[in-house]
Amino acid sequence: MPAADRRRLLLLGLLATLYPGSALAQQRPNGTPADHDMSALPDSWTRPDQIAMLAYPGMTLLDLVGPQYMFAALMGATVHVVGRTAEPVLTDTGVAVLPTATFDQCPADLTVLFVPGGTTGTLEAMADPATRRFVADRGARATYVTSVCTGSMILGAAGLLGGYRATSHWIAKPHLAAFGATAAEGRVVRDRNRITGAGVSAGLDFGLELIALLRDSTYAQAVQLMCEYDPVPPFHSGSPQTATAEVAGIVSAMFEGFSTQLGELGRSLSAQT
Amino acid sequence: MPAADRRRLLLLGLLATLYPGSALAQQRPNGTPADHDMSALPDSWTRPDQIAMLAYPGMTLLDLVGPQYMFAALMGATVHVVGRTAEPVLTDTGVAVLPTATFDQCPADLTVLFVPGGTTGTLEAMADPATRRFVADRGARATYVTSVCTGSMILGAAGLLGGYRATSHWIAKPHLAAFGATAAEGRVVRDRNRITGAGVSAGLDFGLELIALLRDSTYAQAVQLMCEYDPVPPFHSGSPQTATAEVAGIVSAMFEGFSTQLGELGRSLSAQT
Repeated sequence: MPAADRRRLLLLGLLATLYPGSALAQQRPNGTPADHDMSALPDSWTRPDQIAMLAYPGMTLLDLVGPQYMFAALMGATVHVVGRTAEPVLTDTGVAVLPTATFDQCPADLTVLFVPGGTTGTLEAMADPATRRFVADRGARATYVTSVCTGSMILGAAGLLGGYRATSHWIAKPHLAAFGATAAEGRVVRDRNRITGAGVSAGLDFGLELIALLRDSTYAQAVQLMCEYDPVPPFHSGSPQTATAEVAGIVSAMFEGFSTQLGELGRSLSAQT
Repeated sequence: MPAADRRRLLLLGLLATLYPGSALAQQRPNGTPADHDMSALPDSWTRPDQIAMLAYPGMTLLDLVGPQYMFAALMGATVHVVGRTAEPVLTDTGVAVLPTATFDQCPADLTVLFVPGGTTGTLEAMADPATRRFVADRGARATYVTSVCTGSMILGAAGLLGGYRATSHWIAKPHLAAFGATAAEGRVVRDRNRITGAGVSAGLDFGLELIALLRDSTYAQAVQLMCEYDPVPPFHSGSPQTATAEVAGIVSAMFEGFSTQLGELGRSLSAQT
């Protein structure tokens, strides 16, 4: 089979995975059942990845949903949204999501452990021994230990960032040091198997990089085209370096209290270990 | 009060709105209660906007959550996630969200009506008379009638795009004509009070543009900095024009069936009106 035809077949399989039972799943070449599609795939394109995304009260929903869109496009993968309990998780913008698994139900051995960020809710998750134990346990064995935004503070609180380069929301980056991590430049920072993204919207860039890492760059490019990720921000205010001094000063001031609490909690947790 | 100090006060108010009861809400200047903050705001910064975001089974969660992050930052606004019923809404990537209101509970007069996209779920929403009635009713009076991705197909099905320029996911754009709309270039397209965004990830650009429209550009820039929206896509594959011919061809082929169904449904609905 020519490479282009094989590729097409693979991506039809991908779509069938994304939208099971949908009309799209019927777009396979006539007479080619799903099983055949899947068996035709090279091992590198379909893998039984187990991906766990932590969900906790007060998290920023967009931190989770950007990467979750990308992960859901991985053929063969199972994506778990993991809550401490099965109860709906109220996020910081007022929308609640339902976990698909609890800490106890989450597979022990993961391909990817992912932790989203937030503000007050993130401080509470960091301070919660059950959450720290869960993250430390799964993170100890996961192939990739990852986060977006202040999710890296929870990885740090669980003892997973000592000796690693990492990033976080720009407000929180100075506090990585409290966990023995080194703050690094970059929208997405990889150091060995730790992969951390910058604030909130960096989850889209992070997610595509993970797709490329877990599959390959053609696969990631197809997913990027599916979500039409061709950003045109209406302003150049996405980082403290490009924002006006007024806007950067205002937002820094807004988060002064959060930053102080993060520093205090970081030192307190570090002193306990 | 100097303009810079007033701005700071305003944005502290914003944060208190975003994170009610949080430590961040305590960052106001000493002795300045919340009421005083709010009463100090110019009318243009705090407004009792009523924003309704449609939620339907099979929708693409990221279509909803990108704009929802932005809308949640509007001081004084109430953001409703509106389902046909109060039941959890299972989205196309396997995560369920809880509506905050039903069709019946949704305010009659809205500042913004927003509709997210999807694929099979979107076809079902377009074909559902109750959904079309709700969208047509609220859209007839809303100050802004908006969508991201194939959400514009639902606006079209509800009769809200006849004679307007609009956009959609690139796969769906050719079908805008079936609803009497003119497909237009642009990540976010505004024609009078109709504002439509391109596919999935365009919701972030769309959301910031709405913030600037509903408040002002300084406000939108602060929100952009809060979510660190300084995109660095790892590939240049976000539109059919920049993707490789191979990737564009593959993804187009994947969606051939969806596109055909969309065209048939569009013609069928148009014929009924």
